[in-house]
Amino acid sequence: MIILGIDPGYAIVGCGLVKSERGKLAQISSGAITTPAGMPFSQRLRVIRDDLSALLDRWKPDAASIEELFFTTNKTTAIAVAQARGVILLALEEHGIPVFEYTPLQVKQAVVGYGKAEKFQVMDMTRRLLSLPALPKPDDVADALAIAICHAHCAGAGPRASLLLQR
Amino acid sequence: MIILGIDPGYAIVGCGLVKSERGKLAQISSGAITTPAGMPFSQRLRVIRDDLSALLDRWKPDAASIEELFFTTNKTTAIAVAQARGVILLALEEHGIPVFEYTPLQVKQAVVGYGKAEKFQVMDMTRRLLSLPALPKPDDVADALAIAICHAHCAGAGPRASLLLQR
Repeated sequence: MIILGIDPGYAIVGCGLVKSERGKLAQISSGAITTPAGMPFSQRLRVIRDDLSALLDRWKPDAASIEELFFTTNKTTAIAVAQARGVILLALEEHGIPVFEYTPLQVKQAVVGYGKAEKFQVMDMTRRLLSLPALPKPDDVADALAIAICHAHCAGAGPRASLLLQR
Repeated sequence: MIILGIDPGYAIVGCGLVKSERGKLAQISSGAITTPAGMPFSQRLRVIRDDLSALLDRWKPDAASIEELFFTTNKTTAIAVAQARGVILLALEEHGIPVFEYTPLQVKQAVVGYGKAEKFQVMDMTRRLLSLPALPKPDDVADALAIAICHAHCAGAGPRASLLLQR
């Protein structure tokens, strides 16, 4: 099963493709869709849709995993991120890809084994679970890989972090 | 000039088409794009995109006018509305329609003549400016017409409400 993890945004959309087979996880590809700050917002949405659409055509993931949005202190940014997230959901729907949504708590729980894990612990476990020498940059891409791993675990298709920790 | 006013939402998208010519305003058509509550959210986004796209193909508006989003007490609803708004902006961008955004204050200012107008005053002035016997229902559709009128005024293509009031 190929899972596309997505960290939604309007300036940077983190994308991480993870293959999950017989309890093993591997990174297939990862990267970021980026849009320039000076571009009109509607055009940025179109870039996100077009680039994501091309990615879906190329990799044909079996499922998409995306973090639920919560409000932070910056409400203006939150609205813009939510608008971009809507466009991302639309692109996935148009490609017939089932979407699974997880809270940050669920991602930490699934990747590290407990919900109050620190960000560096999530990053470190993501790197270990995918057997990578280093995580891709920017953080949005690494976050996307973590979200993909979360779905692999929740869908019962990958090793549970808690089990890995016990080894 | 044909202006499409849009009141964004995910259950109801109010749409109001207003023709503005030589200082005269007229309603061309209005209605709501609706999505059923039980439908998965991504599918609802697709319905909104497809229906709006069909509307744009049919009426070919010269401009779209849409209210800016602000956060109310219900943050979950606000996120969902923002996601739908992103899809609406994308559809407009794909059709090459210039989008103009207005705050609720600007809409009241443009339609009634002052920014602290009550909702019923905005509704009444919208009805009068469009010479309608009654406003369409639901309120989202009437709101969309008000937003279209706002752009007609701000673009200098319609009679100012303040002038109308003085007659």
